[in-house]
Amino acid sequence: MGSPPEKRDSALWSDIPKGPLSAYRARASFNSKELQLFWDGQDALHFKKTIFSALENDPLFARSYGADLPLEKLRELNFLRCKRVFEYGFFKVEDLLKNPLKILVLLNCLGMYDWSLANKCVLHMLVFGSTVLSSGSEQHFKYLEKIYNLEIFGCFALTELSHGSNTKAMRTTAHYDPATQEFILHSPDFEAAKFWVGNLGKTATHAVVFAQLYMPDGQCQGLHSFLVQQIRDPKTLLPMPGVMVGDMGKKLGQNGLDNGFAMFNKVRIPRQNLLDRTGNVTSEGTYKTPFKDVRQRLGASLGSLSSGRISIISMSVVNLKLAVSIAIRFSATRCQFGPTDKEEIPVLEYPLQQQQWRLLPYLAAAYALDHFSKTIFLDLMELQRARLSGDHSDRQAELGREIHALASAGKPLASWTAQRGIQECREACGGHGYLAMNRLGDLRNDNDPNCTYEGDNNVLLQQTSNYLLSFLEHPVQVTGVYSLDGAHFTSPLKTVDFLEAYPGILGQKFRGSSKADWLDSAALLAAYRWLVSYLLQESHRRYCQEKKSRGSDFEARNNSQVYGCQPLALAFMELTVLLRFHQHTHSSSVPPSLRTVLGRLSTLYGLWCLSQHMALLYRGGYISGEQTGRAMEDAILTLCVQSSQQPCRNNKCWLPRVYGDMVEVCKRTPRESTAQTGELKDDAVALVDVIAPSDFVLGSPIGKADGERGVLERAAWWPEFTANKSVANRLKSQL
Amino acid sequence: MGSPPEKRDSALWSDIPKGPLSAYRARASFNSKELQLFWDGQDALHFKKTIFSALENDPLFARSYGADLPLEKLRELNFLRCKRVFEYGFFKVEDLLKNPLKILVLLNCLGMYDWSLANKCVLHMLVFGSTVLSSGSEQHFKYLEKIYNLEIFGCFALTELSHGSNTKAMRTTAHYDPATQEFILHSPDFEAAKFWVGNLGKTATHAVVFAQLYMPDGQCQGLHSFLVQQIRDPKTLLPMPGVMVGDMGKKLGQNGLDNGFAMFNKVRIPRQNLLDRTGNVTSEGTYKTPFKDVRQRLGASLGSLSSGRISIISMSVVNLKLAVSIAIRFSATRCQFGPTDKEEIPVLEYPLQQQQWRLLPYLAAAYALDHFSKTIFLDLMELQRARLSGDHSDRQAELGREIHALASAGKPLASWTAQRGIQECREACGGHGYLAMNRLGDLRNDNDPNCTYEGDNNVLLQQTSNYLLSFLEHPVQVTGVYSLDGAHFTSPLKTVDFLEAYPGILGQKFRGSSKADWLDSAALLAAYRWLVSYLLQESHRRYCQEKKSRGSDFEARNNSQVYGCQPLALAFMELTVLLRFHQHTHSSSVPPSLRTVLGRLSTLYGLWCLSQHMALLYRGGYISGEQTGRAMEDAILTLCVQSSQQPCRNNKCWLPRVYGDMVEVCKRTPRESTAQTGELKDDAVALVDVIAPSDFVLGSPIGKADGERGVLERAAWWPEFTANKSVANRLKSQL
Repeated sequence: MGSPPEKRDSALWSDIPKGPLSAYRARASFNSKELQLFWDGQDALHFKKTIFSALENDPLFARSYGADLPLEKLRELNFLRCKRVFEYGFFKVEDLLKNPLKILVLLNCLGMYDWSLANKCVLHMLVFGSTVLSSGSEQHFKYLEKIYNLEIFGCFALTELSHGSNTKAMRTTAHYDPATQEFILHSPDFEAAKFWVGNLGKTATHAVVFAQLYMPDGQCQGLHSFLVQQIRDPKTLLPMPGVMVGDMGKKLGQNGLDNGFAMFNKVRIPRQNLLDRTGNVTSEGTYKTPFKDVRQRLGASLGSLSSGRISIISMSVVNLKLAVSIAIRFSATRCQFGPTDKEEIPVLEYPLQQQQWRLLPYLAAAYALDHFSKTIFLDLMELQRARLSGDHSDRQAELGREIHALASAGKPLASWTAQRGIQECREACGGHGYLAMNRLGDLRNDNDPNCTYEGDNNVLLQQTSNYLLSFLEHPVQVTGVYSLDGAHFTSPLKTVDFLEAYPGILGQKFRGSSKADWLDSAALLAAYRWLVSYLLQESHRRYCQEKKSRGSDFEARNNSQVYGCQPLALAFMELTVLLRFHQHTHSSSVPPSLRTVLGRLSTLYGLWCLSQHMALLYRGGYISGEQTGRAMEDAILTLCVQSSQQPCRNNKCWLPRVYGDMVEVCKRTPRESTAQTGELKDDAVALVDVIAPSDFVLGSPIGKADGERGVLERAAWWPEFTANKSVANRLKSQL
Repeated sequence: MGSPPEKRDSALWSDIPKGPLSAYRARASFNSKELQLFWDGQDALHFKKTIFSALENDPLFARSYGADLPLEKLRELNFLRCKRVFEYGFFKVEDLLKNPLKILVLLNCLGMYDWSLANKCVLHMLVFGSTVLSSGSEQHFKYLEKIYNLEIFGCFALTELSHGSNTKAMRTTAHYDPATQEFILHSPDFEAAKFWVGNLGKTATHAVVFAQLYMPDGQCQGLHSFLVQQIRDPKTLLPMPGVMVGDMGKKLGQNGLDNGFAMFNKVRIPRQNLLDRTGNVTSEGTYKTPFKDVRQRLGASLGSLSSGRISIISMSVVNLKLAVSIAIRFSATRCQFGPTDKEEIPVLEYPLQQQQWRLLPYLAAAYALDHFSKTIFLDLMELQRARLSGDHSDRQAELGREIHALASAGKPLASWTAQRGIQECREACGGHGYLAMNRLGDLRNDNDPNCTYEGDNNVLLQQTSNYLLSFLEHPVQVTGVYSLDGAHFTSPLKTVDFLEAYPGILGQKFRGSSKADWLDSAALLAAYRWLVSYLLQESHRRYCQEKKSRGSDFEARNNSQVYGCQPLALAFMELTVLLRFHQHTHSSSVPPSLRTVLGRLSTLYGLWCLSQHMALLYRGGYISGEQTGRAMEDAILTLCVQSSQQPCRNNKCWLPRVYGDMVEVCKRTPRESTAQTGELKDDAVALVDVIAPSDFVLGSPIGKADGERGVLERAAWWPEFTANKSVANRLKSQL
């Protein structure tokens, strides 16, 4: 403590090069290295730096900005890079259990470079590999070595052509044949083809395949997973007999990853290759399972769904971080218009509110969702550890349900926030954002499937609203008022506990009407609790009404989605993310010098999300009067821009232009400026420094850390050119 | 009249092939050919069919779904296709004046095929060619023939690297040299390079270049345009001396179009090549202009900006039409889940409300904006005709300002609606939407620049709010209440006239509270008029407050954008679009059988847009009480889905599956079903048939008109295979 963090451990940071952005950095209210240390921790920072350096120094990972590589080449490069990542030994099997957060850091680092690469590694190592281990038994452990050495390459084949999200309706079959002690794997028609399977297009030799298990007597035991060795011959990479396997072709994004399809024509696989944790077949053909209930068994065999969704939350956050880093750095150096014809100023300063109001909430969202993605990952690890240690307690089951609910709404919230944020960043960078070389297009395209795979966002939200509504087990309808007597809200992570006070919350009203009242985080959280309570009541009301008028539970559930359950799930999720971020930023572990900026980020995220529900706050009577809504807008603007009570009247504080002549830098000292005016804008560039990867990994000329982006600039290594010119002689003398 | 339209003119329509979508078509409440005739008119339908057939039958235009073509190949193909379009003679010079709507139809047809192609043609023929004619004088008419024959190829070079939207700050110079009677065109540095210029990357031989005109005495006469012949040698396509010209490289979209940059190193061009309509230089070096005011002259030389923006409105509408066509046809055939485990139903039916609520408003928006784009184009044509005929009346000037305001907000509204709509459609199609071959990615990418070029959307909206605020010339502030005494609202197209009653409107309140009240279009329009009035007052209040606290008009304008001027401009635009659509759909020219469906589309578009401003309706006191807001949601759902008063209880009405076995079709007759339940959903497929191009032009396997999309289907021309097998003999006998 006391000494600045860069003195304590200089190996953690590369120096940020000087350039047009230095002036912004000088105005920040905090030390970005101190925040980085608090945010990531020393171990993660070390590991990040190691990975980034390895990629940057290896020619195989050379960036070719905006290059127009053919699909085939993208696939090839991506496989070679995947192999190299394994060669570097970044993946350590022991980390999976002992230090899973390290695995998360690794994946995010690889994803910051390229999601095709990260996903190729993950699908092989974690999705395929872990499923073999967790769904199989000891006899399957022998595959671990081969997986780790890339002797075999795996994929996870669940989805079928006509059944994206409905796992129960899968139609691939596996009939047991006692005569040969084999399963006969078969795709009855093209609709039942395994589809979209990552790694299956070009590289997989092995697959975990989900199929309906049929016994010799014709009875179907439901969906089970099988380890299928016969995808491609590991020596020739040619398809094995009976398997039609192919590539899905060009996608909107992640084209380094080979998604594929496969059909099985009565392919025989040994009995031992049933992954038998949830059920097994004796050699004579008798089915045995430790589960009594079919649905419980299905739940266990699909237990990995939460982890997929939680990975996507973290992927989305990475994409959002990259996009805001590019756009904020660009906006702080891009000049456009000005108060007079002669003067131009960076667009982050002007059109003043607009650019800040467009970008800074997404910066706050990146921080808030980043924190959420880490904590939900840790929750999942706790769940999985307890499962492995044989914990079958009620609490464990409840925790599983709660994490499922959080993952099911967290994925939509994170992926949509990233999708919209990237688009906003693209537009904020104007034509430069539209150039492929600046990467915003790739980010948008690579993020796009996050809205769809592992469950369509709209469908997933229903899981979360169902979870919330399930607490209302004994609702009593009294002449139009839906009473909730008998409902008890409690969950292991306590995300729903506040709803216990539900009827009381619904009677509350916002007490303030000024900007300052909205900037009070307790008031903000109270408003969100009211909103979630209101939407819970509203969803329940719509559901009951629909059920009464239609009779069918199926229809009633569907028809209460749009204006009820869907906003309920999203608002609940926003509150959960906000609350965790708020608690983290207000905990005693936060260094005093970081409290102000982190507190502002938390409030901005909350207010910005809440403002999108303002109609409901008015409608339900939580707020009233013109001034209250206007005050919320003013509060958001204050956080993004500057306090209108203490306006910055220094008209000369525009920053220097990127290239050239006009150079009038703000003369206020950093602390002075932010202490006076409370601008997140002045902190924005430093906040980006905390979450942005190295320039090489960010891979966007307009997003460079120094703010230089001209192609005509002198090379950074120019002194090398002028020094030691007599290379030839020097080498000769060494001979 | 009386007989169905297909009987009257069978040459207009190709038969829609039978398939899984036939059942939906049978349920429509109207005849789609009748609507098509009403919507497009016979001439346009004929012309469309001619163009589509030409493209489909010419191997040069063969579709390669989801192909992975290199940039260079895309550019080459696009140029070849552009040449072919001119060879077909679709562009007729006389249409430019006599029948400009035909040119619009042509561009939209080409754009439906590929925007790279349409824009390449437009930039050469209309932007470059028309500028030479309209900014030059008779001496420049000689270029027309060469332009039309593609002897020369042109581009329009305004934008510079560091000056996207600020035309006044352009830095390319043109110094007049009386000694040789030439202009010396020069780019002082890399920042002043002409940037983003379409056609300049690879093909342009000529350019219209904007530069600051300097006289021999050093005086700058401001921005003028020059015809520059020295871009590339038309014989070799090599750059001319003194010009550094290059390609911008890969973009996010429209990669068939070669955007480029150019720098000029003291390039000499003859005096005659100044496009001299707004100002000329005598051989001795004296400047002459018919305009007395510099700003008036600049306005005239940039007069074509409105036409660029109006083109973009129409481009965006085309993209939206294509995307909703694909998504709605796909949703009507894609099966997923079902009320029981055995049964699955098309996703357009289920998750019932969700899919319809996501897609149908965009279908309504496509119709509403399509109508607006046609009418604003006709307004522009009226303006240009009057200009050419020498009309310099006040009304003409006012019309110019009004069209400028409508184009400046119409472009953001249309391009953002398309951008969001395409994304929604992409997600609604799940993994299939994520496959490149289905075109939704290309549509999103190709639409993306519409948000940026010809003025960034956010910047442009300010033009419109400035226009509206300019009517408030004598506002009087009385203790916090901003009175508008003395303001007079009137404009040639009457878009602002309702604001004359502004103070009275602000005193109004919504009188109803039920769903039926919202479904009344008069009430809907009244609510929108109130909203625009409220936002005008709010923007004015924010502006006055900012100006008072900061003093600077520049800052005050900027700081009143976010929650004031920007929503004002958008709401005003939505009202204008809605009003024109409403008037069109409620006019006496609408055939009686189309009135219901068109009226529903109009109401849905209006309610859907208005619902996004619900917070303001509550905040300003226009609506109050829980029930009123809920009723608006119910009204939207009713339009999208079905009347909850008359629920469709026929659980057997799911449509047949795409491939195969499950076949229970709704037994209700078409009229019966819609008359009973009022579902736009049942009309959706037929509404798409009206706006979708031919399958070949749509270019999306999941968007095919018959609803078939399996790769395993028998070819449509299979009888050819079985018939006349003795081809060899037959040919021999003919020898």
